[in-house]
Amino acid sequence: MSTRIALVGGTHGNETSGIQLIRNYRTYGLPELAEGLEVSLHLANPSAIAANVRFVDEDLNRLFTPERLTAGGSSKEAILASHLNETLGPKGNSAYDVVIDIHNTTSNMGATLILLSADSFNIQLARYVKQQMPQANILLEDEKSFADHAYLCTLGRRGVMVEVGAQPQGVLREDVLLQAQTLTETILSFCALDELPDLPACTAYRLGENVHYPLDHYGFRTAMLHHELQDNDFLPLMPGQPVFRTFNGQDITWWQDSPTYPHFINEAAYHKQNVAFATATQITL
Amino acid sequence: MSTRIALVGGTHGNETSGIQLIRNYRTYGLPELAEGLEVSLHLANPSAIAANVRFVDEDLNRLFTPERLTAGGSSKEAILASHLNETLGPKGNSAYDVVIDIHNTTSNMGATLILLSADSFNIQLARYVKQQMPQANILLEDEKSFADHAYLCTLGRRGVMVEVGAQPQGVLREDVLLQAQTLTETILSFCALDELPDLPACTAYRLGENVHYPLDHYGFRTAMLHHELQDNDFLPLMPGQPVFRTFNGQDITWWQDSPTYPHFINEAAYHKQNVAFATATQITL
Repeated sequence: MSTRIALVGGTHGNETSGIQLIRNYRTYGLPELAEGLEVSLHLANPSAIAANVRFVDEDLNRLFTPERLTAGGSSKEAILASHLNETLGPKGNSAYDVVIDIHNTTSNMGATLILLSADSFNIQLARYVKQQMPQANILLEDEKSFADHAYLCTLGRRGVMVEVGAQPQGVLREDVLLQAQTLTETILSFCALDELPDLPACTAYRLGENVHYPLDHYGFRTAMLHHELQDNDFLPLMPGQPVFRTFNGQDITWWQDSPTYPHFINEAAYHKQNVAFATATQITL
Repeated sequence: MSTRIALVGGTHGNETSGIQLIRNYRTYGLPELAEGLEVSLHLANPSAIAANVRFVDEDLNRLFTPERLTAGGSSKEAILASHLNETLGPKGNSAYDVVIDIHNTTSNMGATLILLSADSFNIQLARYVKQQMPQANILLEDEKSFADHAYLCTLGRRGVMVEVGAQPQGVLREDVLLQAQTLTETILSFCALDELPDLPACTAYRLGENVHYPLDHYGFRTAMLHHELQDNDFLPLMPGQPVFRTFNGQDITWWQDSPTYPHFINEAAYHKQNVAFATATQITL
């Protein structure tokens, strides 16, 4: 029995690479490397895509915890999540072997593969991706179990995210689309392998925590991201290097004793939560 | 009597440079060069700023034609436009000598001064800006009269726009803020001059027309902006150079017989209208 893959775009309606990739595969067909796989194509949030917004009522990609799926809700996205749980899940007992969900970021993260656990499948996948596409980044978010994550891709038996930037929301850049396509097809190639080659260990980044902008007592930011940190996703941020510049011209430097690997630097979607970036440690998979 | 200036940010609620600049001037004061001017500070669309969106109901910066101001309307922005016409106008009879409205674009337009007529004040301003800030671009949109334009800045006796990019919507970049601040303060410096120096003529761009993405009969795009044109705002696009790449890999090249100077290339706010870029001719002011 062949591997069943759900390829998903438009979970966020203004992240254009995945939306266009799904439309292109529908119009022109899947690449040859997908032969032997059973691939279905999905646009997750059609209303948000039509409006060219991240979501209509609430963030769809935060609704797939067991609790939220059980609780339901009346928002457009809560109703949609319940429907997607039927078509791509049900979570914990899906007919899909792998759900690949394609995203964009305004941060300069290049082509990043986001994994939610370090099991042997994911480790082999990470190694294969780094072998085939050395410029790609591997980000591991395993601070909770796969099932406890709220992401759409956790509807599948396995699930990964493709995250590519920098691209403004609602804009389609050819260079970013190409990176999203290359990473997606590299994952499909891996899924189509009959047996795994002997793959060397690779470098990855393990998610740490969110770092917030400094705020005054009215909740307004008192500083912006420092220009020396802007666009430096996954490059080491060393103790003493500038992180923020206050609006009266003072530099705030990295306050921890050890380097970190910042990513999602100055991401537009996290603007309202005042998240400046996420930290990570470098690991070997 | 000193010159009265209205400095405006947040006409679009997700264009952060102007919003932050107004907040900074309120907190830390105006620069010394503004002494001798009577400068008031305005955030035009507080609801859109709070929601971090371009607008709530409709685009505020398209509501200031004489017809729309007379017609009124019940949208949030139509009500706001009527209020702004009282505080910054009334259009055609304003107490403000100059309204400076600060915007951002996702296009790589650098610091661009947008002028709506080529009268002697604007020509001297353009020359002064190019002398003080040679990297700035001057864009002239004089296809209709100053009064017939729908822009907020036309509420003043004179009005100009500061347009700075590339910056994703909802993101504050230090480099972009600095350019917006430099251009804004150069305009203020000009307004504070007692007499004009002898200024050499300068190069500018006169708006042509919008170029749209090719669409299929369902209204879906069949091509994306070519990577060779992306980010090349105000650089000459020569006949035969690539403009679009279709999703099945064909290049569409510039079809006119003469070069043009594209700008607002792949701007997110024009995504829904399927505008790929605007053309311009190079002129001397």
